[in-house]
Amino acid sequence: MNQQELFIKMALDAWNVYVDRTNKLFDSLSDEQIASEVAPNRNTGTYLLGHLAAVHDNMLPLLGAGDKLFPELYEPYVRTPDKSGQNTPIPELREAWNKVNSALSAAFEKFSADDWFTRHTAVTEEDFTKEPHRNKLNLVMNRTAHLANHLGQLAFLREKK
Amino acid sequence: MNQQELFIKMALDAWNVYVDRTNKLFDSLSDEQIASEVAPNRNTGTYLLGHLAAVHDNMLPLLGAGDKLFPELYEPYVRTPDKSGQNTPIPELREAWNKVNSALSAAFEKFSADDWFTRHTAVTEEDFTKEPHRNKLNLVMNRTAHLANHLGQLAFLREKK
Repeated sequence: MNQQELFIKMALDAWNVYVDRTNKLFDSLSDEQIASEVAPNRNTGTYLLGHLAAVHDNMLPLLGAGDKLFPELYEPYVRTPDKSGQNTPIPELREAWNKVNSALSAAFEKFSADDWFTRHTAVTEEDFTKEPHRNKLNLVMNRTAHLANHLGQLAFLREKK
Repeated sequence: MNQQELFIKMALDAWNVYVDRTNKLFDSLSDEQIASEVAPNRNTGTYLLGHLAAVHDNMLPLLGAGDKLFPELYEPYVRTPDKSGQNTPIPELREAWNKVNSALSAAFEKFSADDWFTRHTAVTEEDFTKEPHRNKLNLVMNRTAHLANHLGQLAFLREKK
């Protein structure tokens, strides 16, 4: 493994750790638990599940890996705060979350080592010349921290021992 | 900037973003707010502040960058759960958090690009031969996600708008 492949492994390992932890948490929670607020007057688990599914879905076009699978989730779960009339059934959000992450994994496997260091589509070619760190792998690193941030909140849906 | 330097920049940028966000949050909170639980029956802000200070302090020896500055924080804030009699004054914890991160920044600046890809001290040389991803930069990446995880929780100490 050369050093480039090693960086890629480091970043994807971190992504996989947090996706797996989040899957384990969601799988352990009933729909009723997910429907609760994570803390008083804060986001519901439902909103955060929809938010994470929509943010990860949006990674597909950002990575040049295809269109969003669930474009209808972006407006209510990213651009709109919780408790604004969102009413997607939780089983549908669970399914979206799983499908989107599977599509990302499939896309990741197709990328060559060099692909990971090409720009993501929110950066223009001109800006990328000046800011070569704004590449596909960096997008995954940023989204890993975003996921970890919300996972810390979602953990409060677990019953307190 | 070669690709190795680029990857180091990506990882350190992510670290700095989350340390800065956490600093801004702590600076915006009164000691009284920090003393509250982040959610009912969950950790207090005090515990999480001590926990983050102690975990980051422990990065100094793990990176081979010197001894811990506040070794007395590790037992009560990492090995022991909250509400077990910890009584460090919040101003002391704030100071520890800031000093530890400054010491880490100073250490980071001294590392060469190659240094970042050497093992951290919790990995034996033998294991490192087989698992070269367990390097110093990977430790920083893991601790960035750890910080993001707890920052999501600490954000609940802010007054709800």
